[in-house]
Amino acid sequence: MTTKYPAVRTAAGPAGSAGSPDTATAGEVLASYLHTQAVDFLRSLRLHGESGSDADEAGEAARLLRRSARRIAGALYVYRPLTDTDWTDQLRTELVWLSDLLGREHAYAARLARLRGALHRLSGAESAGPPGSGLTVGAARAGALLERQLTLARTRAHSAALQALGTSRFHAVADAAALLASEVPLDPGAHGVLAREALPRLAEQAQRRLAEAAEALPLSVAGHPYNAEALAHGLAASPAPDGPPAEGRQDAPWHQVRRLVRLRRYAQEVLDEHLQTDAEPSQPSQSSQSSQPSLSVRLLGAGQALDRHRDAAEAAAAAATAARTPRIAPATAYALGVLHADQRHEVEAARFAFGRIWQRLVTVAAPS
Amino acid sequence: MTTKYPAVRTAAGPAGSAGSPDTATAGEVLASYLHTQAVDFLRSLRLHGESGSDADEAGEAARLLRRSARRIAGALYVYRPLTDTDWTDQLRTELVWLSDLLGREHAYAARLARLRGALHRLSGAESAGPPGSGLTVGAARAGALLERQLTLARTRAHSAALQALGTSRFHAVADAAALLASEVPLDPGAHGVLAREALPRLAEQAQRRLAEAAEALPLSVAGHPYNAEALAHGLAASPAPDGPPAEGRQDAPWHQVRRLVRLRRYAQEVLDEHLQTDAEPSQPSQSSQSSQPSLSVRLLGAGQALDRHRDAAEAAAAAATAARTPRIAPATAYALGVLHADQRHEVEAARFAFGRIWQRLVTVAAPS
Repeated sequence: MTTKYPAVRTAAGPAGSAGSPDTATAGEVLASYLHTQAVDFLRSLRLHGESGSDADEAGEAARLLRRSARRIAGALYVYRPLTDTDWTDQLRTELVWLSDLLGREHAYAARLARLRGALHRLSGAESAGPPGSGLTVGAARAGALLERQLTLARTRAHSAALQALGTSRFHAVADAAALLASEVPLDPGAHGVLAREALPRLAEQAQRRLAEAAEALPLSVAGHPYNAEALAHGLAASPAPDGPPAEGRQDAPWHQVRRLVRLRRYAQEVLDEHLQTDAEPSQPSQSSQSSQPSLSVRLLGAGQALDRHRDAAEAAAAAATAARTPRIAPATAYALGVLHADQRHEVEAARFAFGRIWQRLVTVAAPS
Repeated sequence: MTTKYPAVRTAAGPAGSAGSPDTATAGEVLASYLHTQAVDFLRSLRLHGESGSDADEAGEAARLLRRSARRIAGALYVYRPLTDTDWTDQLRTELVWLSDLLGREHAYAARLARLRGALHRLSGAESAGPPGSGLTVGAARAGALLERQLTLARTRAHSAALQALGTSRFHAVADAAALLASEVPLDPGAHGVLAREALPRLAEQAQRRLAEAAEALPLSVAGHPYNAEALAHGLAASPAPDGPPAEGRQDAPWHQVRRLVRLRRYAQEVLDEHLQTDAEPSQPSQSSQSSQPSLSVRLLGAGQALDRHRDAAEAAAAAATAARTPRIAPATAYALGVLHADQRHEVEAARFAFGRIWQRLVTVAAPS
């Protein structure tokens, strides 16, 4: 990774304000956002290194690290024409790799917690009791099986992440982040265009990609409560040992919209940071961009609904996978079947919730 | 069963119109309704006897027989103070017994059809194919197991019904219906009160019992889509071999409201028959009771939602019962678990639907 273009720094520098919203260049604003995220990334990296054997602290540091990594990659994607793409395309790929790698351990832990909670709920048991208390035989065995399988997956993910953190590939990402924190490799032209002209145009493109993907979803079906669509293939490939379940095919477009909502949200963060530079901090919604905070909030809500969609879909798949374990008792398999269907209905509920948020979102979505 | 009170017949007789809505007595109107139902009952009985080995014809005759039996029993219950209760209380008990007995065979057949349809839907298979086609191993085995168990139950119900039709108990019911078709044993006072005064008052009591029971339901929870309440005890007692599932306890008040909706509907039929006596047949909603047809339609809709609630609850219970069959394969048990949860979500969907109908129903429910 080489820095072909030295960053053109404004008087305030990328660390400070990017100047007045009216006169700031697109390069200044983007560099300021990326600088902030890169500083956060490096801080989280240091926290992670210092966490030692404190799993909670390491987990929190990894979460913050992924948070910054996703934002840097997202901003570099949406505002790609403003960047030195030779350098940033590669960094983006590496940040996605790192974020995915660091996220797996957390994902397995969260999946297990979700499934354990569902088993307790389905048993009418208090979740406050010790593990397994109040559960019927089938539910307790299903819980133990899921615990075994997901803990193993989690441990493997943990080892893989630790191992990756010692590789030269990882150190290259850290070096790139350090560069981003001092000088952001942008396209020289980015400093010749006004932020208020160039940035909304690119955010608008992200909005369009999102809108196209969202409108292609079966939203009218999803908007009808209890449409039973998410479980429509609940038994289609389940007890068969091969391949992904048929449900994965119907989930994929929703997962794609989830990623596009996230990109749109990060694009909005860059815009908001620019526009709120000289707004009263205590009254951000009093400015002429009064609909923008509302848009951010709705994008966040839409993203959370689709996060829940993904989490429930993956939990349902984990229950189906566990049910294919050889030589399990029928009561265990039955409980896993109930659990699978329960999580697929969570999938359906999340689609319903997203549909309602989306309707309200499109009315305020066009960046001004 | 003796007829202590000879029926006081109007000029037109119970077979004809009960006179003008303004001057008809409560006894005339009730007798006319019961007469019509009793004639239908006897006709269905004859059809059933003549059906021989034609199962479809016998099934249709049994359906019509139950239809009349439920209406007679319902009208006798709601308008009990107008009847010779010594005689009618006993007939009511016997009609409920008969209706239940004749309904079981149909119920098992409908339950199997519902579960078979759900298995196909959950397998993403076309229901048009031959049985078992397009199903995965688990779904096919679950279907075969349910087929075996519910067909056995159906056959037993068929034999029990046939046997009952030869008993003196049954012949006593038929004799009572024949009496009802010629002269209805009413309280002598029923002919001294006006229909437009006495009948709405008793229908209002039925409405009050219904409203009290419906308002005691958790309608605010049920009105929130995807509340996950119906499956809240999906694993609570399922793999245990004893007693009814915990879900039965939360279903019971809904089943009770279902019965009260039905009583209210039959009560309304008696009112409507009275009020529409001199209304233009082609314009029943042009009369001053323009909201009444709407009430009947809404009562029908509410009843259908609660029928679906009951059917899904019983289908879910049948899947749970089948899963407790010894020595079934895990894949079979898994499919039954998915099926159970699917039907419990149908239960939840039916509650949601009822809640919406109920809101609209209470605005037009007071009989005028």
